[in-house]
Amino acid sequence: MVQRYDVAIIGTGPAGLSAAITLKIRNKNIILFGSRKLSDKLLKAQEIQNYLGMASVSGSQLAEQFHNHLEQMDIAITEEQITSAYAMGDYYSMISKTNEIYEAKALIIASGVSFARPYPGEEQFLGRGVSYCATCDAPLYKNKTVAIVASSKKEEAEAQFLAELCEKVYYVPLYKDEVLLPENVEIVRDVPVSVTGGLKVEKLVLKNREIAADGIFILRDSVMPSQLLSGLAMEENHVIVNRNMETNLPGCFACGDIVGQPYQYIKAAGEGNVAALSAVKYLG
Amino acid sequence: MVQRYDVAIIGTGPAGLSAAITLKIRNKNIILFGSRKLSDKLLKAQEIQNYLGMASVSGSQLAEQFHNHLEQMDIAITEEQITSAYAMGDYYSMISKTNEIYEAKALIIASGVSFARPYPGEEQFLGRGVSYCATCDAPLYKNKTVAIVASSKKEEAEAQFLAELCEKVYYVPLYKDEVLLPENVEIVRDVPVSVTGGLKVEKLVLKNREIAADGIFILRDSVMPSQLLSGLAMEENHVIVNRNMETNLPGCFACGDIVGQPYQYIKAAGEGNVAALSAVKYLG
Repeated sequence: MVQRYDVAIIGTGPAGLSAAITLKIRNKNIILFGSRKLSDKLLKAQEIQNYLGMASVSGSQLAEQFHNHLEQMDIAITEEQITSAYAMGDYYSMISKTNEIYEAKALIIASGVSFARPYPGEEQFLGRGVSYCATCDAPLYKNKTVAIVASSKKEEAEAQFLAELCEKVYYVPLYKDEVLLPENVEIVRDVPVSVTGGLKVEKLVLKNREIAADGIFILRDSVMPSQLLSGLAMEENHVIVNRNMETNLPGCFACGDIVGQPYQYIKAAGEGNVAALSAVKYLG
Repeated sequence: MVQRYDVAIIGTGPAGLSAAITLKIRNKNIILFGSRKLSDKLLKAQEIQNYLGMASVSGSQLAEQFHNHLEQMDIAITEEQITSAYAMGDYYSMISKTNEIYEAKALIIASGVSFARPYPGEEQFLGRGVSYCATCDAPLYKNKTVAIVASSKKEEAEAQFLAELCEKVYYVPLYKDEVLLPENVEIVRDVPVSVTGGLKVEKLVLKNREIAADGIFILRDSVMPSQLLSGLAMEENHVIVNRNMETNLPGCFACGDIVGQPYQYIKAAGEGNVAALSAVKYLG
């Protein structure tokens, strides 16, 4: 029996954290998915001048203040990446990258804006050779050939796992750090262009070469919300919300950079608060 | 020649302050109208738990943090109450309670929500005996009888001024503090019910008595935005805005409690930031 939370929050930037705090005050049973590092974008910010009440702080100082706030409210972060969510009527079901299942009556998406556009062919071949989750789909490619497009170093663990099962693994890192992988993984420093095939995937096309593969794993830090949750109304790469942070799906709210510009911390925090109170109202 | 600011901000709650800070960072020439005490509501707040980054602060602590932020950014507060604003095409003209005139290319209304509904008859007799501004309209009532409905102690100065000109002044305080006024002012502790008359105002009707008067001054801490700025679209006592905090009037933005629930500090601060950046875009 899966525990059903009142509200699941995806994202640990200012929007998600603000939502979590307000929901906790309202005595809701929440689960907060994200990184204990909170937000890479925040940590990298040199100086933030317009977070009202904190004159001129660095991103890491602000992150520390946020951590203190979470600690004082006894809010934990679940370090899981949710790869798919499903609207089940009166609740949402979520599956993580490690194949765990979670359930919540309401869902707040605060996962930040994704600047990554799908590659041509990517969406077309999704489920027909294109996958976002090595843990989920690796068994399908036993003794076969796969290509992995990886946005960050942490995907090397996924590649290692695939290398144990597959005959041949190509690894295309989109980051500059040194790649440490077993010998049977071929590291390809190139730029992905498109995914092609017939009934199923056949090739990953790169700028300078093509790789024939039975499966192509595209591992990004964040999943496009429309891929995360089918039926979610978007406009370009933003989730459409009204002033109450309601999306087109009942019980699903969104806030922060993912709902549009300006990409500002205080704006995101304010929206997180509104999304949380709308979720409280929804729960009745 | 009146100095024309880039942006005038009405209100020194979290929404107005957040807007001011962001506009200052964007090098805009601003004027911020409000109280150096910032916000009565804020100061009275015992504990605020959900202003992300400041775990469990009192209202006065938060106000102090806001003051520090303003000081660090060298933002001054102009202690004036704007009683009317006019859309002049490419700028806004504003008149204060002390009859000063101000001009700005864009206007941000962040004056908080007014829970005061107009008394029956009040709007009907506005300009025909009902006034919101003693300084402006006192000369009309020389040697006549006026009644004053006063929301706060600071209106006693207005009453004193009227007492010098008028034959008879009735003063209805809506607050509990002791009233200190000259002998020729009759203090009436009662509850206003309505304003009545024929072509012009005749009476202020109270719960327990009626006062015959040539003029009735209704002095509130805040002016309803629709009375402040003619043509501003409202829904009940909230200014209608879109997600960019744009009102129906070009160059006029609104944020904070005045644009609707939830009435929360972090929500107001976030909206102030958005309003400011929309004003920056408007100024081009």
